[in-house]
Amino acid sequence: MADRVEAYIDQNWVRFVEELKEFMRFPSVSAQRAHDKDTRACAEWVVAQLKGLGFDAGLVDVGGQPIVRALRKGKSKKRVMIYGHYDVQPEDPVTEWQTPPFEPTVRDGTLYGRGSTDDKGQVWTHVKAVEAILKTEGELPCEVLFLLEGEEESGGDALPRYVAQAKADIKPDAIVISDSTMYDANTPAITYGLRGIVALEFILRGPAADVHSGAFGGGIANPAMVAAQILAQCVSPDGKILVPGFYDDVVPLQDWERESFRKLNFNDEAMAKELNIPRVHGEAGYSTLERLWARPTFEVNGIFGGYQGQRSKTIIPASATVKITCRLVGNQDPARVRKVVVDHIRNVCPNTVRLEINDFGASPPVLFDVNDPTIRAAQDAMRKGFGHDTTFIRCGGSIPVVSTFAEYLGCPVILMGFGLDSDGPHGPNEHFSLDSFVKGTKSAAHLLRMI
Amino acid sequence: MADRVEAYIDQNWVRFVEELKEFMRFPSVSAQRAHDKDTRACAEWVVAQLKGLGFDAGLVDVGGQPIVRALRKGKSKKRVMIYGHYDVQPEDPVTEWQTPPFEPTVRDGTLYGRGSTDDKGQVWTHVKAVEAILKTEGELPCEVLFLLEGEEESGGDALPRYVAQAKADIKPDAIVISDSTMYDANTPAITYGLRGIVALEFILRGPAADVHSGAFGGGIANPAMVAAQILAQCVSPDGKILVPGFYDDVVPLQDWERESFRKLNFNDEAMAKELNIPRVHGEAGYSTLERLWARPTFEVNGIFGGYQGQRSKTIIPASATVKITCRLVGNQDPARVRKVVVDHIRNVCPNTVRLEINDFGASPPVLFDVNDPTIRAAQDAMRKGFGHDTTFIRCGGSIPVVSTFAEYLGCPVILMGFGLDSDGPHGPNEHFSLDSFVKGTKSAAHLLRMI
Repeated sequence: MADRVEAYIDQNWVRFVEELKEFMRFPSVSAQRAHDKDTRACAEWVVAQLKGLGFDAGLVDVGGQPIVRALRKGKSKKRVMIYGHYDVQPEDPVTEWQTPPFEPTVRDGTLYGRGSTDDKGQVWTHVKAVEAILKTEGELPCEVLFLLEGEEESGGDALPRYVAQAKADIKPDAIVISDSTMYDANTPAITYGLRGIVALEFILRGPAADVHSGAFGGGIANPAMVAAQILAQCVSPDGKILVPGFYDDVVPLQDWERESFRKLNFNDEAMAKELNIPRVHGEAGYSTLERLWARPTFEVNGIFGGYQGQRSKTIIPASATVKITCRLVGNQDPARVRKVVVDHIRNVCPNTVRLEINDFGASPPVLFDVNDPTIRAAQDAMRKGFGHDTTFIRCGGSIPVVSTFAEYLGCPVILMGFGLDSDGPHGPNEHFSLDSFVKGTKSAAHLLRMI
Repeated sequence: MADRVEAYIDQNWVRFVEELKEFMRFPSVSAQRAHDKDTRACAEWVVAQLKGLGFDAGLVDVGGQPIVRALRKGKSKKRVMIYGHYDVQPEDPVTEWQTPPFEPTVRDGTLYGRGSTDDKGQVWTHVKAVEAILKTEGELPCEVLFLLEGEEESGGDALPRYVAQAKADIKPDAIVISDSTMYDANTPAITYGLRGIVALEFILRGPAADVHSGAFGGGIANPAMVAAQILAQCVSPDGKILVPGFYDDVVPLQDWERESFRKLNFNDEAMAKELNIPRVHGEAGYSTLERLWARPTFEVNGIFGGYQGQRSKTIIPASATVKITCRLVGNQDPARVRKVVVDHIRNVCPNTVRLEINDFGASPPVLFDVNDPTIRAAQDAMRKGFGHDTTFIRCGGSIPVVSTFAEYLGCPVILMGFGLDSDGPHGPNEHFSLDSFVKGTKSAAHLLRMI
């Protein structure tokens, strides 16, 4: 099979990329209501593509953004569910894109544009793998069920709610997700651990409007300064999280993991150079890879209050807003972490401002057994597709739905990522290597045969 | 004189207000290059008005925004210089204005619009006082020199440079400035002390672009968190400034001042209610009025970095910016305060981010002798104009040029303000009471006769 299917992919990948560009032109930004129509149009486009491949495909509406659901029978009754998401992150800061985020462009064998790697490009490898098998072999080796959601980037709960209510109908034997990364361009990898996440914001309100810092300075609390004082009581300058109880359920790294991570020879200086930062930074006592993959975080994603224009404006801001995400590992329970963080912010916030806290969703961390036979098969498929040994890694990011699958569907989840951290997902100039796209498509095709 | 001049003002104030509205329609925002043309057009309009009153008037260009200079002889050779500024603060947050900032509107005896109180409305009282005297008495009692600058709100140095080079030509016997406030609507006051100011911003740069908080969180410093940690090392939650050496040259309040301030019966709860804050806040050991008028501050005027949209975005910001102004009192030297603040920020900033500090100008604090005869004359003029006892107060704000005058021109500076703190200068819905406008115009006319 490998030869005919791989040959088909080699002969058709240029067209696959043109189709992917069409997919990426939809600004399916799920976090922004102004893009709701674009997001739905994108989902409808995907449905049409899967119908064209003979799938029984349609949109499932359970509130929020629609879910693409598409099923096609195969030789065996075994069912492989392919999960991905067709929504993308907001485009800002838009001025830093070299080419517009929603006008995908190929430069030097790399596809640039929002969603190229996260996750439209990776979803497309599976769609095209299915096409390659169908066009060469006439039928699929097993049942394939696509479930592609539209709220992954905005913490929505349409997919989890659908899975909870339709679990008896979905019932997969294995789940495949390509929404993570390889270790590097030459080291394909299956991801066995993901960090969880808790997202929230706090808003501090002072005077009803910005007021003159001469007339009122020294007389009233400054919401921006209070925000800073609260944050400084959440994380110490040496990277330790100061929220009482935050670390309680963190599971220590096992010896084989520290050893395995060490063998990857992660290069701190290279990362610093790549990001153009003076040096790496984080919690004492852990290597950078250990901190990225197996330690929790408390990060400010955005902070704003008061004047943001040129030079100076002599005001005390009416309010300050801080957007926070915590990454979780081991046995940390998102609800409990949210509670200790919210309690701590309430405890340290002075009574001179009004405090509002908003909840933007959460998901638990996951950790899979690397000895599961399905996960081993995925390792083999990827080795074939990429022509390289394939290792096991963790991922610092979160795929909230993985824990939903673990909870409701009770089958192995294969995290077979084709992207790279350096692809710039979520930032400007997001991109995806066309070489990885082609090899990923081949790996996806091999996997359907080997499961 | 009082009767005829006051009668003229009473008969013509409605027209005066229409002219003031014309003055306010110019968006003379000196901090923003996009408004440079509007700022110059505003200055030219003022020149035309003063020429219409028989002044030898024109624009002085010494780089930066032009200065309006207008001189007219009088009965005596004594020269009163009237200083003010025709530039205004930026309009933002523009969505919080009930009527557009540059479309002045009268509601319930109050004039709303940017510049109504700070400082176009107060400048206009002096122009119309001159008109009232000329139209009723035919000539001015003394020489009147208007010097109106266009960089007061943006820390420019055109006026100070001009004064330094033209001091032999300017040579006033007294200087009058109406760019401060009365104690309250029923308590006219002459201001004998102003706080100084130091304005700066610091920018912390991390990764070259926003990066994924899952992929990189825990591995690198977060510029927004570092900004918070730096600020928390600048001001304690109980309002004490932690910058070493900051308080060194602060002059303690004298007993008569604390006693005089106490007699004003400042109402903390009323201010909190007016601003819609839970309660006042500031340095322990001082009353609110003492903190506002006679203690230095370290205020964040603006902070921003990372995502500011709806809900959540899982990034580490590329940078964070903090805009700061410190208010100074007593013998604090702006250059020295700037140095201790900048040194402290450099000292506490970790080497995991790149630090940039930008300077936005400074001015020293001033304190006048309340027993000076010119200042006592101003007290009388204001008592007549407002029909109320007139007290001596300090002001929490800064008028940078006052110290320039003190340095180069060596004559008394009369700070005769007609505004109120509650007028909302620098914020949205800035306004000026028409009653204060009329009484201020009368006071200004009386002053020219009594000096």
